Amino acid sequence: MTDMPKTYRRIVLAARPRGPVAADNFRLETVDVPELADGEVLIRNHYLSLDPYMRGRMSAAKSYATSQVLDETMIGGTVGQVLASRNDYYKAGDAVGGMLGWAEMGVSDGVLLRKLDTTRIPLSAYLGVVGMPGMAAWYGFNHILEAGAGDTVVVSAASGAVGSVVGQLARLRGCHVVGIAGGPEKCAYVVKQLGFDACVDYKAGNLDAELAAATPDGVDAIFENVGGACLDAALARTHPFARVALCGLIAGFNGQEMPIKNSRLLLINRLMLRGFIVTEHMEFWQQGLQELAVLVANHQIKYRESVAEGLAAAPQAFMGLLQGQNFGKQLVKLI
Amino acid sequence: MTDMPKTYRRIVLAARPRGPVAADNFRLETVDVPELADGEVLIRNHYLSLDPYMRGRMSAAKSYATSQVLDETMIGGTVGQVLASRNDYYKAGDAVGGMLGWAEMGVSDGVLLRKLDTTRIPLSAYLGVVGMPGMAAWYGFNHILEAGAGDTVVVSAASGAVGSVVGQLARLRGCHVVGIAGGPEKCAYVVKQLGFDACVDYKAGNLDAELAAATPDGVDAIFENVGGACLDAALARTHPFARVALCGLIAGFNGQEMPIKNSRLLLINRLMLRGFIVTEHMEFWQQGLQELAVLVANHQIKYRESVAEGLAAAPQAFMGLLQGQNFGKQLVKLI
Repeated sequence: MTDMPKTYRRIVLAARPRGPVAADNFRLETVDVPELADGEVLIRNHYLSLDPYMRGRMSAAKSYATSQVLDETMIGGTVGQVLASRNDYYKAGDAVGGMLGWAEMGVSDGVLLRKLDTTRIPLSAYLGVVGMPGMAAWYGFNHILEAGAGDTVVVSAASGAVGSVVGQLARLRGCHVVGIAGGPEKCAYVVKQLGFDACVDYKAGNLDAELAAATPDGVDAIFENVGGACLDAALARTHPFARVALCGLIAGFNGQEMPIKNSRLLLINRLMLRGFIVTEHMEFWQQGLQELAVLVANHQIKYRESVAEGLAAAPQAFMGLLQGQNFGKQLVKLI
Repeated sequence: MTDMPKTYRRIVLAARPRGPVAADNFRLETVDVPELADGEVLIRNHYLSLDPYMRGRMSAAKSYATSQVLDETMIGGTVGQVLASRNDYYKAGDAVGGMLGWAEMGVSDGVLLRKLDTTRIPLSAYLGVVGMPGMAAWYGFNHILEAGAGDTVVVSAASGAVGSVVGQLARLRGCHVVGIAGGPEKCAYVVKQLGFDACVDYKAGNLDAELAAATPDGVDAIFENVGGACLDAALARTHPFARVALCGLIAGFNGQEMPIKNSRLLLINRLMLRGFIVTEHMEFWQQGLQELAVLVANHQIKYRESVAEGLAAAPQAFMGLLQGQNFGKQLVKLI
């Protein structure tokens, strides 16, 4: 243990955002590596996951989870390696996933850790396609949308960590899949690399008409990550009895009003809409992650990562994520 | 057959509304009583039902059913008596329910007719509490809201044909029931006669605060007949995993924009919202109508009717219904 680091760096929430997230909402600190108590594990984080849900935690306002505490390490999923262990189940060198936050290291009692098999799946993928975002896609697609072969599925934020998996699962099911993404580069990736049938660029300024043209037979299922104009455009195309899985509303993360204008169609088309948080459905994770791991290992599901380098880059990368500047799953590489 | 009438009066759709429904959208006509073909039944209508769904049919715009055809008898549920029959199942004098529209008489091939037992239930109740509105309440409450004892249920248009039944079913289930209605008279009726725990007067101008005060423990289920500000006020009070049965959006029947402003809460509280049309769930009608008939016959469910006199009064009564001027189930008495 002589070469153990004595300190590590972390990022804490310094102040809650007023409007858009800003750099001074965060503070980079150096803290001491604590002594391990019996049963504890010290982990060096290799990758930190940045996810839209963190925006909700930064506010004191009511959200689906308790707020991030000020002056504490920002919440976040991590993958890394055990450096030292006083826990019989984990040994130094094990690859592990956990929720150690925006920090270079962390201590866990082992309960929320899990060992990761990196022989066929890269470590970073456990934060994306074979992690929480992949499970959000798997759960919403399989347990809310219930789309079958021939159904038309619309997916917003289609090139993102969740949307990209939804669309590929839907294609494997035999659905007609139409994405919505921001900019021609993302749209080209969604169609050419991920195999969606079409992708509409919401930034091109003609969302309603282009989505209508891409869904000539109407829409049976909507996987919504964005809200606002994206959701209204998709609702306008629904068939009777279409389903809406409401996974995210990133369009409103800065507190914008984000009304559903096409509310009338919820009744007229007898739609079913359900909001969900995938971490509340842990009973499906073993099955879902197993299925996703097989599909990724067999290259039936592709994924893409945006990697920021070093902990200090995390705030800027997070602000970019909220503005759609990432292209694929946003990570911070720590080592 | 010598005393058979030779003509009868009906109201047809003369023009589609532009904005609010107006008297000149309708036209009263006198037409000949047709000769009955084999298998047909001639019915004299005693009561005509007026219901909000008719507003949707009057528009050419997309709705959940085909539009009302211009110059044809306005659609509508009716109860009455068989005057003459060339159908073996029906005989003169039978009390029957049907969809014969805004007319003093009608001819049916018998398929969509049903015989009614008026020994314990008055004929008119088969258009309300033991008819389509009652079934809308029964289906939405039992199959969408799934509310249990102790749950708080919010019901808009609480004194109306549907809302009044929802609230009484919920009270019988042991729920805490809060209505929303227009004006102190309706609110007093909802609480004192129907037994709701509370009723908020949306016309008093303080809907959000008063609904919050009436739901101190939050809201588990919303039965929505109105939309707009009523739905937003109820959404603001939801617990996680609350359910919303979307039965009507009468606030927007004149084409007003009716955005759901609290869309964020659909995600934050992981709500399930489902729009429905009760006539698409006929498999439940026998069970539901039987249960409602027993509850009405035993005076466990009360109801109230607003009765307009004579066919010519139907357009004005319908316009009043859309503005909430009715008080209980709106009927037109034809004989």
